[in-house]
Amino acid sequence: PDAEAAAAARARQGELTKPPGSLGRLEDIALFFAGWQGTERPAIERGRAAIFAGNHGMVVHGVSAFPASVTQAMVANFAAGGAAINALAGAAGLELKVVPLDLDRPTADFTTAPAMTGDECLAALSAGAATVEPGLQLLVVGEMGIGNTTAAAALCARSFGGAPASWVGPGTGVDAEGVARKVAVVERALACHADAPRTPFETLRRLGGREIAAIAGAVLEARKQRVPVVLDGFISCAALAPLAAAAPTITDHCLAGHCSAEPGHLGLLARLGLEPLLSLGLRLGEGSGAALAVSLIRAALATHNGMATFAEAGVAGSL
Amino acid sequence: PDAEAAAAARARQGELTKPPGSLGRLEDIALFFAGWQGTERPAIERGRAAIFAGNHGMVVHGVSAFPASVTQAMVANFAAGGAAINALAGAAGLELKVVPLDLDRPTADFTTAPAMTGDECLAALSAGAATVEPGLQLLVVGEMGIGNTTAAAALCARSFGGAPASWVGPGTGVDAEGVARKVAVVERALACHADAPRTPFETLRRLGGREIAAIAGAVLEARKQRVPVVLDGFISCAALAPLAAAAPTITDHCLAGHCSAEPGHLGLLARLGLEPLLSLGLRLGEGSGAALAVSLIRAALATHNGMATFAEAGVAGSL
Repeated sequence: PDAEAAAAARARQGELTKPPGSLGRLEDIALFFAGWQGTERPAIERGRAAIFAGNHGMVVHGVSAFPASVTQAMVANFAAGGAAINALAGAAGLELKVVPLDLDRPTADFTTAPAMTGDECLAALSAGAATVEPGLQLLVVGEMGIGNTTAAAALCARSFGGAPASWVGPGTGVDAEGVARKVAVVERALACHADAPRTPFETLRRLGGREIAAIAGAVLEARKQRVPVVLDGFISCAALAPLAAAAPTITDHCLAGHCSAEPGHLGLLARLGLEPLLSLGLRLGEGSGAALAVSLIRAALATHNGMATFAEAGVAGSL
Repeated sequence: PDAEAAAAARARQGELTKPPGSLGRLEDIALFFAGWQGTERPAIERGRAAIFAGNHGMVVHGVSAFPASVTQAMVANFAAGGAAINALAGAAGLELKVVPLDLDRPTADFTTAPAMTGDECLAALSAGAATVEPGLQLLVVGEMGIGNTTAAAALCARSFGGAPASWVGPGTGVDAEGVARKVAVVERALACHADAPRTPFETLRRLGGREIAAIAGAVLEARKQRVPVVLDGFISCAALAPLAAAAPTITDHCLAGHCSAEPGHLGLLARLGLEPLLSLGLRLGEGSGAALAVSLIRAALATHNGMATFAEAGVAGSL
């Protein structure tokens, strides 16, 4: 980030007509955007929600409450404008870019083989990176993929350790038996790949999925372009787990939009060094919680850019 | 609230293209607005932030980091559009109505006399009620008044019990000595009025302030008109403490916009039976945290009204 721009923004915050620090995290957000956008007065004229969709071979083990066909059906719903993310991206003033990734070709069942070949994983990373067009001032990442909380739990367990059961939850709504099945599937996947090289790329391709790799690719490209990112729920955060375990600063340009109802998310956020902006019990994915948080970011920038300074307002003494 | 409208809204939520409950508190908000607005499809075409300002006689005891003149100066800043609430109301699409209440006539020092006469308190209640014009679909209440966290702490201690120190905090930024002075002032005020009748009105007029009584009046009038209210921080919540201690359902038409950094606010919210939507360390007042939360409410209604049903989207099976 641009330390000079962040310092200028910090100086401006100290001159605005309010007691110092009284806008709490809104002030932090303004400084964060100033640093990454490289300007004292950050703005979001062009923000994008990039939502990636993929299918997962491990769904044959009954890890989801829904059939894999729902992934494609929801992508059609995104295109028709009827999903939650359509309403939330609209409310947040974000462009919506939906990227389905080979939906008719699920990943391999990761309990017996790597989910993706190296080429497949690279293609997904590139598809993610391609959504970060020059000129974007904010990127929201989200996903849709029946079975992907199971992949996310496996990525977390492999990257950060901890019992698989501590990373597995009900996802979109499986019962206790379903959760137990998910735990067993994650354990088998970890055992299958126990001897694989422990590099971020190998972990991602063996245990992830196309939409998950695409999120990692988008976040990396955003870093290169200094575009601030708002992460969504458990899965979009898990997409960064392999990288973050090797290079913890990888999330420095990211904000956590929210903490979801998925039990593993809170611990994952702590591992990523991120404090969520919201905690409203969402568990939908689609970038929904991240898009919701964008309105807070807009409000933070509205105060930063729009408020009067003490000198301008002629308020007696500095507060 | 209108149980039929709320039930219709609940049925609609069950048909939208998402797993049931997956939008968490956004779903609750939609049902809450449906009930109070009396329609399956609640809307906020006209929402208002009403910000009341008053001055306090007890400031002679050194309870604030700022001189009382700042109240008037900030009202001028509101009028000129330079304050945080101007930016936040603008970002949330709210009308801003600022109501200064006899700023050149502070309340009496409540350590030795009632803060207001009966007539003064009634006038403030009425001024608050007058801001709830017919046709409003949402009301945000907020305040500005140097010294008013001390009044708010006294109202809480008198209404709910507990040590004064548990309700007193740094406000806009006094140091530990200042906090100790505030505690002593609250203790003296409680002792002075210990034998007064324990009715909400007597508590409000003796320990409150004009802007605080105006908030109570606005919230009561909103209830009469079934207008949903978003409360702001410690002071706007404390305005309801005397009423809530006597009639806990008084906050049923209210949402807590946020939990502020003022230490007493969390416990006060629990006493009022309210769970805050946000907790971002704000401690400014002016309705700032409540206005910030309005964007979440707008997003909740956008999903409720804008999403497709399973039938409309043709998604196979219900999720």
